[in-house]
Amino acid sequence: MASSTQCQINVLSSERSVEKFNRITLRQTDKVYVLDHKKVGNRCCLNTTKDKLYESIYHFSNAELLEISEHHRTKVARNVNLERLQKNYLFPEISARELEHLEKYPNAKIISLGIGDTTQPIPDIVAHTMSDFARDLSTRKGYRGYGAEQGNKELRKAVADTFYGDVTVKDTEVFISDGSQCDISRLQLLLGSEVSIAVQDPNFPAYMDSSVIIGQSGEFQDNMSKYKNVEYMTCRPENNFFPDLSTASRTDIIFFCSPNNPTGHAATYKQLQQLVEFAKKNGSIIVYDSAYAAYITDESPRSIYEIPGAKEVAIEISSFSKIAGFTGVRLGWTVVPEELLYSNGFPVIHDFNRIVCTCFNGASSIAQAGGLACLSPDGLKAIYSVVDYYKENANVLLNTFASMGLKAYGGVNAPYVWVHFPGSRSWDVFAEILEKANIITVPGSGFGPGGEEYIRVTAFGHRESILEASARLKRLYC
Amino acid sequence: MASSTQCQINVLSSERSVEKFNRITLRQTDKVYVLDHKKVGNRCCLNTTKDKLYESIYHFSNAELLEISEHHRTKVARNVNLERLQKNYLFPEISARELEHLEKYPNAKIISLGIGDTTQPIPDIVAHTMSDFARDLSTRKGYRGYGAEQGNKELRKAVADTFYGDVTVKDTEVFISDGSQCDISRLQLLLGSEVSIAVQDPNFPAYMDSSVIIGQSGEFQDNMSKYKNVEYMTCRPENNFFPDLSTASRTDIIFFCSPNNPTGHAATYKQLQQLVEFAKKNGSIIVYDSAYAAYITDESPRSIYEIPGAKEVAIEISSFSKIAGFTGVRLGWTVVPEELLYSNGFPVIHDFNRIVCTCFNGASSIAQAGGLACLSPDGLKAIYSVVDYYKENANVLLNTFASMGLKAYGGVNAPYVWVHFPGSRSWDVFAEILEKANIITVPGSGFGPGGEEYIRVTAFGHRESILEASARLKRLYC
Repeated sequence: MASSTQCQINVLSSERSVEKFNRITLRQTDKVYVLDHKKVGNRCCLNTTKDKLYESIYHFSNAELLEISEHHRTKVARNVNLERLQKNYLFPEISARELEHLEKYPNAKIISLGIGDTTQPIPDIVAHTMSDFARDLSTRKGYRGYGAEQGNKELRKAVADTFYGDVTVKDTEVFISDGSQCDISRLQLLLGSEVSIAVQDPNFPAYMDSSVIIGQSGEFQDNMSKYKNVEYMTCRPENNFFPDLSTASRTDIIFFCSPNNPTGHAATYKQLQQLVEFAKKNGSIIVYDSAYAAYITDESPRSIYEIPGAKEVAIEISSFSKIAGFTGVRLGWTVVPEELLYSNGFPVIHDFNRIVCTCFNGASSIAQAGGLACLSPDGLKAIYSVVDYYKENANVLLNTFASMGLKAYGGVNAPYVWVHFPGSRSWDVFAEILEKANIITVPGSGFGPGGEEYIRVTAFGHRESILEASARLKRLYC
Repeated sequence: MASSTQCQINVLSSERSVEKFNRITLRQTDKVYVLDHKKVGNRCCLNTTKDKLYESIYHFSNAELLEISEHHRTKVARNVNLERLQKNYLFPEISARELEHLEKYPNAKIISLGIGDTTQPIPDIVAHTMSDFARDLSTRKGYRGYGAEQGNKELRKAVADTFYGDVTVKDTEVFISDGSQCDISRLQLLLGSEVSIAVQDPNFPAYMDSSVIIGQSGEFQDNMSKYKNVEYMTCRPENNFFPDLSTASRTDIIFFCSPNNPTGHAATYKQLQQLVEFAKKNGSIIVYDSAYAAYITDESPRSIYEIPGAKEVAIEISSFSKIAGFTGVRLGWTVVPEELLYSNGFPVIHDFNRIVCTCFNGASSIAQAGGLACLSPDGLKAIYSVVDYYKENANVLLNTFASMGLKAYGGVNAPYVWVHFPGSRSWDVFAEILEKANIITVPGSGFGPGGEEYIRVTAFGHRESILEASARLKRLYC
């Protein structure tokens, strides 16, 4: 069959070629195989890696092509930005590996130190407030429809007072959201495709991925594992996890996360002073992610706005997720100061307000009621006691790795511990720990090339799991 | 002072010039005035119109310039897409008019038939489920952290079974969200800036505004009140509220809302057949908004997927907001069929899944528990009885306008009534009804030039308000 070879070459020639068929039917020796693009695509997307996909297609390389089905295709071109986006999102990829492991060892008792997901119940005072609010929605008096897109006034005020009381953030500068990750994308809609960006390396994938989606980056360069036209600011123990600003290029936007996910490092006052000065000199906007500020133990700033002049150069995003166990409840906020101006003098806050009004309809009223309960005096006491619990977990993990003779960072000002395995590839370390100790970690290279040789472990978890993980790790490495 | 005139000319010369100062201090006769850009900007954005802003600056035209302050400006250019976006979003503008009215008449008893916001309590069975779920978050057994970004499996299945049981939508094709408006923006992130779009005229502003924000449109043409490079498909009584597809240009994307907001028209089976055929022929993707499908009384399709072949050409977005009073709770969904392919054969669903995983973290777990309760047999009975209540309201309003000798549309398959005031400008009608009857409506031109001469009134409201509004309108016009 003349077209047979050609089709198979298509399928095998490059990553892109997988997009060129809908369904192919092949015969290999006696058997007929139907490769459905949808199916293959699903597997690729949900529970296998790209490499595996190509491998499975490769097995058919000597087969005879029977049929190529012709589904209707629209004439809409796939968004080039999404085409540029590399691999699967880190955490789905980890889930896929976990599933594979469970297929291999159905009885494995896996402990997850992977995704940073809270595990402790929400304090009574907070959960009961949400419960009462939800129940009252069934009464005429308690019913609430649309709230303000920017969030309830009382909650905006409580956030401003509680987290920015010393640094005069106004309640009108606080925009309540359904979480930081969603706000990062809304900020990308605000900024558009024309701005240049810098990220810490390693960094939380949502900055870079959303940046590619909106079209700010160039092509991915396989040899460097970096996108073109993006400034990667290396943060390693050698530079005290703070970028060398004397060599960093000027960009419009600087994504900066402190306490950092994944390294767990909280930037010092002096470091942040340098960062603000750098941004001011360059006319840059810092997008400062303080989602883990509640975990700070020492005197490191809890907000970028503790630095004088920061309101003229920085947006701050944060979240109730890790403070109050709201990962499933969904609540966060973004501060856009009135002082922050575009090059034409137009205040950024007006455009962000417009984005929020057009692309968002406010966080769930029930979640907002819960957020307000968190910020009452008793609520604060309760949620910080949960934070202390996780910090104690972090301490257990830090000690575990230290006793194994490994260098571990973070854990003091953040719920993450960042462990160095010199000379090892981080996906290999991930695989080894999963295989031998049934523990899920996060390979550092998933956070960028600067994370190679590292793994991240989370301090979120029940104490007994953390202790069991500690014991298993010690057995494995000591 | 030499620069005085120049500055004032700057301030007065054009709309853009208002961006050219941060704070100006002026002296007029004996008084010194400080015009703060931030303040001015805030008023402009939140509670006044642009025209008013320029008027208030104009009063200072013979003043002496004392000082121009120099705040720090970043070197980040304002997003050109946001610069292109016209006026304030419709509903904030209406709120501003309402505030003005209340300043003028502090004792006015305003009835709002404006924004389509639900007013009836959420049925017990639903509210209590959410309440119990929230309470259980304080227990180890009931606690839930991150859920799947795409939504809880059970809820995805329940949505597929309840709303698409006859048309074989798979649960994996249903993506649970925090509401349609948010999903529209996520769809824009999916589609990117390179696609061409068509909208119904009139239409719900979120399609067009989000389209401008992502960069799909050209400049706004003042003389036509339309954006360039956008196909406006007129929907008027003359064409039975369905576009003349024989003259419509081919676009990549067709936003189509049925039952329609604002006209209240539900497209017939035959109309939707034509639409699907048109999309198929052109290789277009329909983004079909069925948020009001529960209000359909007659045999009009409740989903685009009732039309054979629609899964190859259409995405459907919908919401619990208007079905279950969830406007504040926040819950919706989007269906992306596996059959929907880009021109290169790549399935759209994979990219949308990636957008959801990267730019969203799932709807609130409490809201999802509520959504599931809505779709139980008793839940469905309860929520549809609230829908019936609003439909009775709509009937009252339809009769009111008919008795006034006005042509009123919608109301039978939708909670909106669309009223024609031949020869009148819709903002004038809005103003007159507000001034004389203390009733908020929505001026039709806010939905596009095709809405001129119309107002939209909502059937959401307590019965006594609807009856009182009806009485006031009859007094005013009969």
